[in-house]
Amino acid sequence: MNNFEFYTPTRMIFGRGTHLQVGKIVKEYGFKKVLVHFGGASAKKTGLLDTVCSALETEGIGYVQLGGVQANPTLSMAKKGIELCLAEKVDFVLAVGGGSVIDSAKCIADGAGSPGTDVWKFFTKEAAPSGALPVGTILTLSASGSEMSASCVITNEENGLKRGFNSTTHRPLFSICNPELTYTVNRFQTGCGTVDIMMHTLERYMGGTTKETPLTDRIAEGLLKSVVEAGAVADQDPENYEARATLMWAGSLSHNDLTSAGRAFMMQVHQMEHELSGMYPQIAHGAGLSALWPSWARYVCTAWPERFAQYAVRVWNLEMNFENPMETALAGIKVTEDYFKSLDMPTNIRDLGVEPEKIDEMAEKCTNFGTRTLPGIKELGKTEMMEIYRMAMEA
Amino acid sequence: MNNFEFYTPTRMIFGRGTHLQVGKIVKEYGFKKVLVHFGGASAKKTGLLDTVCSALETEGIGYVQLGGVQANPTLSMAKKGIELCLAEKVDFVLAVGGGSVIDSAKCIADGAGSPGTDVWKFFTKEAAPSGALPVGTILTLSASGSEMSASCVITNEENGLKRGFNSTTHRPLFSICNPELTYTVNRFQTGCGTVDIMMHTLERYMGGTTKETPLTDRIAEGLLKSVVEAGAVADQDPENYEARATLMWAGSLSHNDLTSAGRAFMMQVHQMEHELSGMYPQIAHGAGLSALWPSWARYVCTAWPERFAQYAVRVWNLEMNFENPMETALAGIKVTEDYFKSLDMPTNIRDLGVEPEKIDEMAEKCTNFGTRTLPGIKELGKTEMMEIYRMAMEA
Repeated sequence: MNNFEFYTPTRMIFGRGTHLQVGKIVKEYGFKKVLVHFGGASAKKTGLLDTVCSALETEGIGYVQLGGVQANPTLSMAKKGIELCLAEKVDFVLAVGGGSVIDSAKCIADGAGSPGTDVWKFFTKEAAPSGALPVGTILTLSASGSEMSASCVITNEENGLKRGFNSTTHRPLFSICNPELTYTVNRFQTGCGTVDIMMHTLERYMGGTTKETPLTDRIAEGLLKSVVEAGAVADQDPENYEARATLMWAGSLSHNDLTSAGRAFMMQVHQMEHELSGMYPQIAHGAGLSALWPSWARYVCTAWPERFAQYAVRVWNLEMNFENPMETALAGIKVTEDYFKSLDMPTNIRDLGVEPEKIDEMAEKCTNFGTRTLPGIKELGKTEMMEIYRMAMEA
Repeated sequence: MNNFEFYTPTRMIFGRGTHLQVGKIVKEYGFKKVLVHFGGASAKKTGLLDTVCSALETEGIGYVQLGGVQANPTLSMAKKGIELCLAEKVDFVLAVGGGSVIDSAKCIADGAGSPGTDVWKFFTKEAAPSGALPVGTILTLSASGSEMSASCVITNEENGLKRGFNSTTHRPLFSICNPELTYTVNRFQTGCGTVDIMMHTLERYMGGTTKETPLTDRIAEGLLKSVVEAGAVADQDPENYEARATLMWAGSLSHNDLTSAGRAFMMQVHQMEHELSGMYPQIAHGAGLSALWPSWARYVCTAWPERFAQYAVRVWNLEMNFENPMETALAGIKVTEDYFKSLDMPTNIRDLGVEPEKIDEMAEKCTNFGTRTLPGIKELGKTEMMEIYRMAMEA
């Protein structure tokens, strides 16, 4: 087990009807002027936006609205939010939505707390925020874990780069998680969320070579089992509260570092997916992960078949082939791939419309133009990335 | 799954050598005068106390010391600490020790932050703290989970009552957890710690009737499996880093409400044990739990044998008897009892020197003199408690 720090100060308020408390909660912290940040039409259509704004009004809290955040949230939207916060003297950013809205809110919070600095520099590591507005969330999509994490991913439309920036400055103060708000999430987005949640833990579980983390392993395996079961139920029965609740809580735990305590890891599939959806913004993040993971897994598993066999046995209840762990490892990858297919998630990048001639450029970008390789069970440079993209094209 | 709040803001700094950072960490927060609170001779003998004080001195931070905290920490010690904090204008309480020292520090922090109020009233729910000094810990014993929890248990020597008080006011700001500092914990105390950690999760897992918490169940089961394995290793090989690290991290997770998210529960065995060690202060908490649990489990399991069978199958890898779940349930209790015995932990209260004629008084106190029953899989009133104490006497 490696040394680690674990810090999850976000207050999680979980369960039925909890979003109705938002006015009281914001008042409790003493905020006066809120930016209510949201996505598209669904927050309006479902009446959630009205409910939230009424709850703020009831407590006498002022607010301004900024909607229109799209999947793969953009730098230009964040810049718009920063300007609005400064102009309106906003002291709290409330994200009402899923990971894209929350990440956009985080970027706005950092930017509004660090006036005069180009926020993109936080993502290129050329600068750090000098301050940040506090952020809260009302979660409407179980997937990113952004509601409890320090991470934030933004796409710069000018150069097509999608980059992440982890910072405690923008970790949510509180997150209100009502699984009922995810009943209206459609089948495709539910599948994307299930894959994303699994990947946040799988990439920790298989993203490095640290040995001797039995407790972290067991928690990761238990989370994966629960998500597999709940994801299948929610796929068929979208208003099943218990399944939606399991996905929602798992989503938060999967990306708050609980499932990597004591482990070194690099999220190679996430990194490679960022180049996919960076270049093809229509690709949903979860679908991109689903399309890449089986090929990534088959490529790297030869370096540590026992780890993949443990996953197969403990998460999928497969029988261990003691004479040939690789066979068990491959069976675990196959059953995962079949599970993704059962959710109608893609398992190759061809179906996502990725053009073979773009593989070189994606790999080049993923090495940050030749300036990095990605450590892991197998270290990935441009050559290895191209091979995985190619496998995922032909899968 | 029930609605819940989950809030664990303590910054956990985990791993080899981490205690050496204490001066820098305290300075980072800007504290000027620290109460260094500790237990008996071992903190001095091992040199830990000197190391901690040197680290504070290096950063120019003032401190006063208060040692002598014993197992089942007392109200009188806490009052002494409160006076010292007020007299010396202490602004931060640093506990260097295990759960007893940390709980004593928490009580001091509440008292020093609420001058003029009798702190015992916090434990009898007659008053609440108006403020509290911040608390940090350097953990030297894996057991109580107090380093990451809101709980605090104090014994009032004047009336022999041992009472708990949960409050966010005294939740540690940070906890430094170096498993190496537990190498010197003797075999008996290691066993007590292993039992205590297991009980914090078992009492959540079996402490109520909430259904449909699959993720919380899996996390609890994974934690229990890991603790059983690591406890057996540490029992035989006290300087095994990985086993000590698993116990330490499990100890923190076991009592921070992760293993009860969405579940209603009452820690019946803990409540009944408090009366044991309240009346017989020589009884170590973990030993008291070990002595009571098998009898408690056999008494209540008839009300929900499937739950105990699930425990037996998932934690102990026992085969499910599908025709007769009660047989599996009882086998799971037996294997747990055997495990406690393998650590030389008591499995009856007779061996602890408890007198049969005191059973009535213990049960009376545990009902808070007839004013409460304890809800759970089976609700316990005085009659039921007496029966469990009797079973534990004769076991």
